[in-house]
Amino acid sequence: MNVKTQNIQLEKFFNPDSVAVIGASNTPFNLGATICNALKHYLEFPGPVVAINRKAEEVSDYPGYSSVKDVPHDIDLAVIITPASVVPAFVKQCGEKGIRNIVIESAGFSEQGAEGKKLQMEINDYAKQYGIRFLGPNCLGVMNNVSRFCCFYGAYDGMVNAFNKAGGVSYVIQSGGVGVVIFESLMDDMQGINKMVSIGNKTDVDEADLLDYFNSDNTQVISMYLENVANGIKLMNVARRVRKPIMIFKSGRTEAGTAAALSHTAGMANNDVVFDSMCRQAGIIRLKSISELYSLPKMLTEMPLLRGNRIAAFTNSGAFGSISADIMTEAGLTIPRFSPETREKLSKIKGVFNINNPVDIGPALPQVYLDLIDIILAAPEIDGLLLMSSIWRDFIIDVIKEVMKMCKHYDKPAAIYTPNSISRIISVRKQFNIPIFDSLEEAVRALVVSYEQFRYLRKKER
Amino acid sequence: MNVKTQNIQLEKFFNPDSVAVIGASNTPFNLGATICNALKHYLEFPGPVVAINRKAEEVSDYPGYSSVKDVPHDIDLAVIITPASVVPAFVKQCGEKGIRNIVIESAGFSEQGAEGKKLQMEINDYAKQYGIRFLGPNCLGVMNNVSRFCCFYGAYDGMVNAFNKAGGVSYVIQSGGVGVVIFESLMDDMQGINKMVSIGNKTDVDEADLLDYFNSDNTQVISMYLENVANGIKLMNVARRVRKPIMIFKSGRTEAGTAAALSHTAGMANNDVVFDSMCRQAGIIRLKSISELYSLPKMLTEMPLLRGNRIAAFTNSGAFGSISADIMTEAGLTIPRFSPETREKLSKIKGVFNINNPVDIGPALPQVYLDLIDIILAAPEIDGLLLMSSIWRDFIIDVIKEVMKMCKHYDKPAAIYTPNSISRIISVRKQFNIPIFDSLEEAVRALVVSYEQFRYLRKKER
Repeated sequence: MNVKTQNIQLEKFFNPDSVAVIGASNTPFNLGATICNALKHYLEFPGPVVAINRKAEEVSDYPGYSSVKDVPHDIDLAVIITPASVVPAFVKQCGEKGIRNIVIESAGFSEQGAEGKKLQMEINDYAKQYGIRFLGPNCLGVMNNVSRFCCFYGAYDGMVNAFNKAGGVSYVIQSGGVGVVIFESLMDDMQGINKMVSIGNKTDVDEADLLDYFNSDNTQVISMYLENVANGIKLMNVARRVRKPIMIFKSGRTEAGTAAALSHTAGMANNDVVFDSMCRQAGIIRLKSISELYSLPKMLTEMPLLRGNRIAAFTNSGAFGSISADIMTEAGLTIPRFSPETREKLSKIKGVFNINNPVDIGPALPQVYLDLIDIILAAPEIDGLLLMSSIWRDFIIDVIKEVMKMCKHYDKPAAIYTPNSISRIISVRKQFNIPIFDSLEEAVRALVVSYEQFRYLRKKER
Repeated sequence: MNVKTQNIQLEKFFNPDSVAVIGASNTPFNLGATICNALKHYLEFPGPVVAINRKAEEVSDYPGYSSVKDVPHDIDLAVIITPASVVPAFVKQCGEKGIRNIVIESAGFSEQGAEGKKLQMEINDYAKQYGIRFLGPNCLGVMNNVSRFCCFYGAYDGMVNAFNKAGGVSYVIQSGGVGVVIFESLMDDMQGINKMVSIGNKTDVDEADLLDYFNSDNTQVISMYLENVANGIKLMNVARRVRKPIMIFKSGRTEAGTAAALSHTAGMANNDVVFDSMCRQAGIIRLKSISELYSLPKMLTEMPLLRGNRIAAFTNSGAFGSISADIMTEAGLTIPRFSPETREKLSKIKGVFNINNPVDIGPALPQVYLDLIDIILAAPEIDGLLLMSSIWRDFIIDVIKEVMKMCKHYDKPAAIYTPNSISRIISVRKQFNIPIFDSLEEAVRALVVSYEQFRYLRKKER
């Protein structure tokens, strides 16, 4: 299947006109019902939704049928959330009904031994026979912030809140639990989600297919949590032609981690050294922790790329000059001396403790901050800024907003950290839409990742 | 001076009966005035305070004199916050008045070249002549949560808030800016400060003296930010006899960081490899980031020590089983298989996805959590627990509170991380007094540090 045709079919996962939730009923604790409920009451999904259950009962005011074949209209997407043993039969029914997109949320397949593997093969056969593409099994499926479609079961308030904040980052995650942390954490941040796909055992549609899809839509940054790579060569080939930033956090780096992943989403072990080298060759930014999945994208959506490793550090507390110089050096960034020209310009500004790099400024008026930072960002020997000023007066917030404009003007990024409590950082970040990082380490890491993306792009341009 | 005599003299820094603030006046932006103001209006410091300034003017309703020698009563502690050039003369006056404890907050000494070094030597001579012990120069001095004494200038609301939360951690910091972050960050945490000393250039009283002092008071954990070590041998000798946990974060690990530190607090370069080996020999926990100064102590004050490296991981999201197994393995902890006895006990509990270690539990009732964790903590093959359950229902909070009791009962620690947003973590941590860490990495790090302290203690016992 070529990429364009494939993307057209995948689009139905994200923008279905009509949906059947197979297994949704009014039995207590029924998971399918939580999907119907979210679509109806929280998301007000505009298209027709039907519930498929033995009694053909209505669920959340959506009409019920005992088989998709009884539904009088076409269905774009079926979501199956039933015991594993009956999934193959439902897939067959879907095929007969002409449904070509299925999300299989049920667990109990390859991750649970021989019996599960057999069921899996039946599903694969039907899918092939009917030209069906499916997500999962053992997944949550899709959420799309634009079409307000979501088939994650157990939808709760925090998740639904994420729908009120559209943004440029799309996620591919191999575990629903990680999705929950991302949803919640982005509520503490300035950035929103475009789309999220939970792929689980990813027997059919895998991360490489979705990379192709997100390359074609309005996504700005693609961020992935993987427990294994389905097909390394395929992922590499796709990644090589994608110019949007691709970030991957992968678990199963150690033997113990791999063993745990195996019983979770049936991932085969990948050699970590091979994966690492693959990332570098294919231009994939390899993340170091789960939190980077939601903390780092803002550096790429809100700031120009870092085009060199020469950083000016700017602080109102001398300690952070020294601490950041250590961290940047260890991360491969340099803190160059300012040129005589720059030093002369800086020395004309009053109230500076230190016109070396890192620049250490005492209590000063806003214009002093801005004059200094303008000189620094204009300096040809500097590629980017590490801005570390605590918010000791509210005017610092205005200073930072001005610096964000300067960054656009000079086409150089600033990584911003305010040495304040996390509560204060979160509140300023959200209220003023400023990409402040949670820690100094994270801000330096954002510079490193920005520079990595710049170099990948240059390599891909060749 | 022997340790006992020295501690008696140092006590006057923390518990002065009477204080003179030299340089406090009503000139706009006067820093000494902010100290008087905080003592009078925020802290309601009970002892007499006087302001020393040229006009002998009252400051914050405290009487003013033009010299300490005019003050009609004894003074325990002088705080000097004047231009560097006049500091030696004031030190001499203090000596003549019989003052034996001085905090020199003024900057402009060794950190600023030859002229400053000359002034420094004058001060040293007077101090020797009169038996004066002094903090600084170029420091903020002392805050004591018990006596409600604080001579940090520029005192602001966030700092004053810290006084409403007494706790077991005492801080020695070489930079005031770091103190501000600690104050603010502890407001997001469950733990409070006992005392804090900002030591700046530490020409007289240094980190080793303060280590001895905090070994003798009600401090539980000693946490330090250093830009250099004044006297490695001295610090090692003291550290060796201290059984309370000692944590140090040191900047100036790289050449660039050292250069920045030099212009900040005049610290001489220390070889980082030497420092590292010193920490291991003397039983000092070396921290990896500023944030560990305020995030890690709760593991040592709230939980038993970890007496071995065999950890059981417990999660309600399979992904965190795999991710944590990676992180623990990389940190030198092991995730052992449960013994047949433990497996048999676990298998009798319903609702468990996975009775391997990591344990992965589905949606379950509180008692299921508690039964499982009780079995795990009782297991002789397990030394500690990594508890990772998202707060998906409020009852999880009650479960965690019960687990904290079990930890005391079995004398084994749990490092707790809830895969939720930081906002949620902070709010639960503060409201329910639960030591939840901000990230999975931090929770694993807490286990490592706890085990390190256990091994140090065992070594010191020999």
